[in-house]
Amino acid sequence: MKVERFENNPIFSPSNTKPFIEGFETTGALNPAAFEFDGKIHLLLRVAEWPLQDKPGELKIPMLDISTTPANMKTMTFRRDDPEWDFSDRRVVKSAKIIYITNFSYLRLAISSDDGVNFTMHDSPLLWPDGKYESFGIEDPRVVEIDGEYLITYSAISRHGVTSNLVCTKDWKNFERKGVLFVPDNKDICIFPEKIGGRYVCLHRPSQSMLGKPDIWMAFSDDLIHWGGHECVMQTRPGKWDSARIGCGPSPIKTGKGWLSLYHGSDNRNYYMGAALHDLEDPRKVIARSETPFLSPEAEYEKHGFYNNVVFCNGCVVRGDEILVYYGAADAFTAGCKVKISEILASLK
Amino acid sequence: MKVERFENNPIFSPSNTKPFIEGFETTGALNPAAFEFDGKIHLLLRVAEWPLQDKPGELKIPMLDISTTPANMKTMTFRRDDPEWDFSDRRVVKSAKIIYITNFSYLRLAISSDDGVNFTMHDSPLLWPDGKYESFGIEDPRVVEIDGEYLITYSAISRHGVTSNLVCTKDWKNFERKGVLFVPDNKDICIFPEKIGGRYVCLHRPSQSMLGKPDIWMAFSDDLIHWGGHECVMQTRPGKWDSARIGCGPSPIKTGKGWLSLYHGSDNRNYYMGAALHDLEDPRKVIARSETPFLSPEAEYEKHGFYNNVVFCNGCVVRGDEILVYYGAADAFTAGCKVKISEILASLK
Repeated sequence: MKVERFENNPIFSPSNTKPFIEGFETTGALNPAAFEFDGKIHLLLRVAEWPLQDKPGELKIPMLDISTTPANMKTMTFRRDDPEWDFSDRRVVKSAKIIYITNFSYLRLAISSDDGVNFTMHDSPLLWPDGKYESFGIEDPRVVEIDGEYLITYSAISRHGVTSNLVCTKDWKNFERKGVLFVPDNKDICIFPEKIGGRYVCLHRPSQSMLGKPDIWMAFSDDLIHWGGHECVMQTRPGKWDSARIGCGPSPIKTGKGWLSLYHGSDNRNYYMGAALHDLEDPRKVIARSETPFLSPEAEYEKHGFYNNVVFCNGCVVRGDEILVYYGAADAFTAGCKVKISEILASLK
Repeated sequence: MKVERFENNPIFSPSNTKPFIEGFETTGALNPAAFEFDGKIHLLLRVAEWPLQDKPGELKIPMLDISTTPANMKTMTFRRDDPEWDFSDRRVVKSAKIIYITNFSYLRLAISSDDGVNFTMHDSPLLWPDGKYESFGIEDPRVVEIDGEYLITYSAISRHGVTSNLVCTKDWKNFERKGVLFVPDNKDICIFPEKIGGRYVCLHRPSQSMLGKPDIWMAFSDDLIHWGGHECVMQTRPGKWDSARIGCGPSPIKTGKGWLSLYHGSDNRNYYMGAALHDLEDPRKVIARSETPFLSPEAEYEKHGFYNNVVFCNGCVVRGDEILVYYGAADAFTAGCKVKISEILASLK
């Protein structure tokens, strides 16, 4: 399958993304949702920042104090030689008892000046973490338009765990927060772009104990707030690229053969992107899946960044048979590529 | 506060509970739901069985093969000196990669011949695990009657994780399975006995990553199937009896001062029972909680069993100011005690 990476990749990087928080530096401009509004392709990126790391041997992490209004950004400092703390995964600091997130993420908008290849990013956040379920940041949005309303789902991180929350907007100026859709830990919510059988449908990715692995579930709703009818529709596959964990990508794409959903998988070495085909009328039925990923970390910006060897897509735009795939690379960059729907469909088994 | 344990405790034990599965022995008759039907107090117990452990140095565990219809109960044998496996918690066998449940649980009915102190248990299961979300067993039911219908929620264990499922019945002969209400891992669902503000309300206990601890959440529903409006309403409290984990007990009791909910807490040494008071009109508001538990593992059958030092209540029956509290003891027994609502209410802070 031909995957045409953009020539200007990475589109965004920490170095071309000015930090917003005073005294902080950007560690990532990544994992964008993608949508069309006002005739232009928009990206809603997760921007990640952490305190300027000005002392070797120390790690400073963000700590939003939500006990005050407005919430006050503080920092917390660890000595890297402190044996109580494990610094091996740059995304977190952990001890035997507790885990901290090293980066603080919020959502920022970028608008394309052309056909979805060149973008200009706003300097200020569009959505800033709000309330007790978002005190460690908000991440990895998905955007879908249904009947003129844009639904933004994203992961909210706090001491309450990882919830999946919903915000709605019609004009990208006024936003209505709809609260927690899925309770801890649950990530990677994507809502189908139309009702099926009269109901809203979504894919979600609950986390579970060691009994199983992170798999993809489906749920149904009449009002976007109350969800039920949960079914596990896709599991990890031993020995394959998606053996360790999977999670849904952007809102699925309607094709003549079924709903095409892009999803990420990991084999504990790399994060890859593959696809699945769901039955048009009963999307719980998964008809086919990628035997091999269509996108693997191969480019330098996919292999080396904040967390290496990751491609992670939660936003795309369809142009006829072509998908403009926007994706996070190495947990630091935003990149883009073009793939053909027909070629993805032909590759599924 | 006066807690009057039944004189005939434990009401049920592995030794007076005949195993149902051929070649198995009973390890527990515990954690009963309690309800009134046909003028009698009923218990819906979790009965746990495992294969006869006939060879020292080995552990045999149940393994329901759901690839056949009817599902076929097989066993799996571990050598206790195998260094790959950790046998330190009798409830599970675990390696670095996977966890198995050592017991297979299903639900059995017991009916009181008097005022809720003496019970006779049926020999056969009332509810037997069914389908892919229940292949490791079903556990810890709660029963609540709303408008003549009995709602049974319980934990379903499988390689998909721990889900919370719903079964409904009006006559305790015909049962309607309503599927998964809450996705992995989520336990300890109790539904309030009446609608509040026109909606069904429940407490639930999602599990989360190391970011936080197992806390109690509340959700709302119009139809008992689709749930939303999730709020974390009670958290663990450092330094107290409920510092490590909490989970809801039986369906809350309506009092003049608010909804009284019994809940279990653990400090990683013992499991205790305490109580909380929720606002009558907005039960998300928790007005008061037990500073100390009203029930702690003190009796021999609470301190020594399959998993020691546990009292765990998911069923009670109200008689005026008195609550008949039925509870699992040491993960092996069913016991009962009487407490006064007025005394619990007076103890809350």
